[in-house]
Amino acid sequence: MKSNFDILYEKYRKMTEEIISGLYPKDYLPTGLPPVLDESMAYSLFSGGKRLRPILVLSTYYSLGGDGKEIEYLACAAEMIHTYSLIHDDLPCMDDDELRRGKPTNHIVFGYPMAVLAGDGLLNLAYETMLEGMFVAKDKDKYLSAAYTLAKAAGMRGMVGGQAADISWEGSEPDKEKLSIIHRNKTGALIRASILAGCLCICDDKETVDSLFRYGEYIGEMFQITDDILDVTSDAETLGKNVMKDAEMNKMTYPYVYGLENSKKRVEELAKSAEEAVCGIKNNEFFISLIEYLKNRTK
Amino acid sequence: MKSNFDILYEKYRKMTEEIISGLYPKDYLPTGLPPVLDESMAYSLFSGGKRLRPILVLSTYYSLGGDGKEIEYLACAAEMIHTYSLIHDDLPCMDDDELRRGKPTNHIVFGYPMAVLAGDGLLNLAYETMLEGMFVAKDKDKYLSAAYTLAKAAGMRGMVGGQAADISWEGSEPDKEKLSIIHRNKTGALIRASILAGCLCICDDKETVDSLFRYGEYIGEMFQITDDILDVTSDAETLGKNVMKDAEMNKMTYPYVYGLENSKKRVEELAKSAEEAVCGIKNNEFFISLIEYLKNRTK
Repeated sequence: MKSNFDILYEKYRKMTEEIISGLYPKDYLPTGLPPVLDESMAYSLFSGGKRLRPILVLSTYYSLGGDGKEIEYLACAAEMIHTYSLIHDDLPCMDDDELRRGKPTNHIVFGYPMAVLAGDGLLNLAYETMLEGMFVAKDKDKYLSAAYTLAKAAGMRGMVGGQAADISWEGSEPDKEKLSIIHRNKTGALIRASILAGCLCICDDKETVDSLFRYGEYIGEMFQITDDILDVTSDAETLGKNVMKDAEMNKMTYPYVYGLENSKKRVEELAKSAEEAVCGIKNNEFFISLIEYLKNRTK
Repeated sequence: MKSNFDILYEKYRKMTEEIISGLYPKDYLPTGLPPVLDESMAYSLFSGGKRLRPILVLSTYYSLGGDGKEIEYLACAAEMIHTYSLIHDDLPCMDDDELRRGKPTNHIVFGYPMAVLAGDGLLNLAYETMLEGMFVAKDKDKYLSAAYTLAKAAGMRGMVGGQAADISWEGSEPDKEKLSIIHRNKTGALIRASILAGCLCICDDKETVDSLFRYGEYIGEMFQITDDILDVTSDAETLGKNVMKDAEMNKMTYPYVYGLENSKKRVEELAKSAEEAVCGIKNNEFFISLIEYLKNRTK
């Protein structure tokens, strides 16, 4: 049986696919520039991602009563930022991954230099798209706050910083502080910012913003911890090895630093805090269903 | 004796250095993220570049009577975009350059992965800075047009596209069309957009915008052709080789495709057209002096 989350998620996901296809530029080829750049950007952008970040932008905005067109540009930008970061993370000089979502990574298909440019192109396109949204935004001040929140979360004081931390601290003995800094920035920042951007674009009521800021913090951490647990347990299942021994393969994980049981306990605690954060919000169906989904992810 | 251009250029250059230093974030280290990202970004941003693009933004804006603070954010963003593109262009998988402005390139000093991230960080920071300028902009609509012009020129339908063309067409027999597409996009787009952004931020009078659009076209081409000529002639001087033989080392140049004399003639023609384009603008001292400078660059 489909859960409440599945139903809502499917609805938003379909919407997101249409938005991204609709906003992706159609005027590239007439420029005479080589098709390969367009192909490599589109290859990664339309490769069956979960679309979590744009769905968070949209669901938050619509839950709070928003009905403007501008939110589509912000949602699309969030996904383009996420996609560029995956392309660059997969590069030979970074994680050197050959597969992503079961398909060859961008540099395997299009070559190393074109993958760098596809990433650059998508990051830039995220901001072109974001600025296009400003032209149609009804409340330009609110839209600007939302856009700036996403931009800051993507940059040196957010995702890029988190990735730099991950690389810099590779091989060093993990500790709670380092783990927290990497998690909060590398993946947490953009997840939090997607929720907050969806909110700020329609609502600047301090109490709601604060609630959704906290909710975003908790959800971001839940997402990361459950990802870490899944990595460890699925590896253990696949390889038939001792779970914690396997976790040592990537030490900068929650289960390694805190232990598997403590990690699961932490997910439960975060779920409670997240529920409390959004209990005062009227139309909180999606927010609650996302908590349930993340809680059940590792069960 | 200092030329008129030198005096004006020095004035704007000093201004630009102060603007970039002032707007570069100071709140990175307190985040606990590793200092190395900040160091690698700052290394390239403060490495003695010509600052041509921000100077074009500022000089155009001030020449047209602008006096707002917001232009500083746009000028700074233009330089950050230019700097990120140099870092990524120099990467081993791209041009594999070890020296830039007489100093080791970013990846030589900070390593390959950090150089990718320094580029990503600076591109993102360009847009964070651009959005910050929107908060203080007096006329948000004008600022938005200017910002969008820069963004589009930096992306797939501009600089990134031009770089993709350069890579894709490497080794193929150069022709006039390919050369023009690479030039117009790889370097021309951001130079044109810097002039246009400076204009749009203060003035949307159709005649002025059109004049400066054309001026930007001519200046961009003059810049590129004189760069190509300097490459060829300085190589020839240094190496004591035949000029045109040496030009074959990089075939996608103006002197190779059109011949050296025709290239010089083209610079003269462009200079005339550029002068005509801005002759109707009241305060055109900087515009005219830039034409003189470019004309004399290869003499």
